[in-house]
Amino acid sequence: MTYCVSIQVNEGLVFLSDSRTNAGVDQLSIYSKMFTFGIDGERAIAILTAGNLATTQAVVKRIQRDIDELAEHNVLSLASTDAVAAYIGKLNFDQQSQHANKAAGNKPDVSASFIMGGQIGDAKPELYLIYPEGNFIAATEQTPYHQIGEVKYGKPILDRIINANTPLQEAALCALVSMDSTMRSNATVGPPIELLLYREDSLTLGARSCYERDDPYLLILHKAWEEELARGFRSLPPLVMN
Amino acid sequence: MTYCVSIQVNEGLVFLSDSRTNAGVDQLSIYSKMFTFGIDGERAIAILTAGNLATTQAVVKRIQRDIDELAEHNVLSLASTDAVAAYIGKLNFDQQSQHANKAAGNKPDVSASFIMGGQIGDAKPELYLIYPEGNFIAATEQTPYHQIGEVKYGKPILDRIINANTPLQEAALCALVSMDSTMRSNATVGPPIELLLYREDSLTLGARSCYERDDPYLLILHKAWEEELARGFRSLPPLVMN
Repeated sequence: MTYCVSIQVNEGLVFLSDSRTNAGVDQLSIYSKMFTFGIDGERAIAILTAGNLATTQAVVKRIQRDIDELAEHNVLSLASTDAVAAYIGKLNFDQQSQHANKAAGNKPDVSASFIMGGQIGDAKPELYLIYPEGNFIAATEQTPYHQIGEVKYGKPILDRIINANTPLQEAALCALVSMDSTMRSNATVGPPIELLLYREDSLTLGARSCYERDDPYLLILHKAWEEELARGFRSLPPLVMN
Repeated sequence: MTYCVSIQVNEGLVFLSDSRTNAGVDQLSIYSKMFTFGIDGERAIAILTAGNLATTQAVVKRIQRDIDELAEHNVLSLASTDAVAAYIGKLNFDQQSQHANKAAGNKPDVSASFIMGGQIGDAKPELYLIYPEGNFIAATEQTPYHQIGEVKYGKPILDRIINANTPLQEAALCALVSMDSTMRSNATVGPPIELLLYREDSLTLGARSCYERDDPYLLILHKAWEEELARGFRSLPPLVMN
């Protein structure tokens, strides 16, 4: 399983991903699900992946090859973020089409989803959720985040905290809390956790933070949130039955 | 959709259910999903339902008919709660079998799940989750609750608050918070919300509380929890990147 979440606020973009993959419950592996592409001062693009690992790896490899081979359409040449989203959507759909319906017995699910966000030149930053079919939707002020993978456990806190004015660091903290809730409830979502912040108009990707299982800050945050929830719960008005 | 949750603590049992059903997004209706059966001083049984409404209504109707007709096996005659669980499981499976695979085109999903809990005579209270196949599992000290329907949004708070020593009223409050998170994230889970508490060894079912959409306490609780979450989030240690 996977949990990736990306948030768009006025100050910029947050990208957060887990690194656990599983084929069944006894074949757990670690693969990064965060990929970045850019030209400092001109464009900055980050991609998060979920779904069939063969599909996502093939798509990311093809993105890199198109860059290396200076293909007409590639992530570093396309004129806008929505053109990049359409390009990734097409690679994704084409890759799935090659392998769907090939197995003799049970049909494997080769579908994959992507979150892609960033900024190109003078245009505003954008954040897209790219579906297995290749189409995509943008984040908006009303819905300022996208999630892929195991999305439900970590959604309530996003709905309650995030809006366009949330500071970038606070949005990142909220994403980590959302990840913490997801990891607690789904054993197939797990560290290392990768975090990347993009500041609007910087046109350069900052350093990526990587939190391992025993990262002291992750442990402190986990404990602090557990205590705050318990404290908040104890502060609620007592039950009224009618 | 549906969300029902039931909790077992040392003091007794909590039953909580929403009342919204939907066939597609444009056919929303209100049906209670909580049913009670008992003989004061001898046994107390509560049932929560999720899944295909035709199936759950048929099962509940059959339970009542078996009682009315003094069938050999009925909820008021069976000797133990696990015998009641097996009986409901069989009714459920039989009912589904009558209608599965009947449609010419798309196969409708006629499956249903039940939570059944209560106490019979001197035996300890039990709380069961009954699967569509008719088999069932009991709540335990390690896993002191069952959920059916839209279970994910409301799970994290249960995992963080509930244990066997949680007072009954506090467990009920936690169930309401779990319901609140679920209603906020899934529009097809909705009021009226029904709440029932069972105190161990009382062998009688208390009054059922029913909270409508505009219930003042529900609104206060919703707002208070939102504020506590925001306050708790603001109290977290600031983001550390590495």
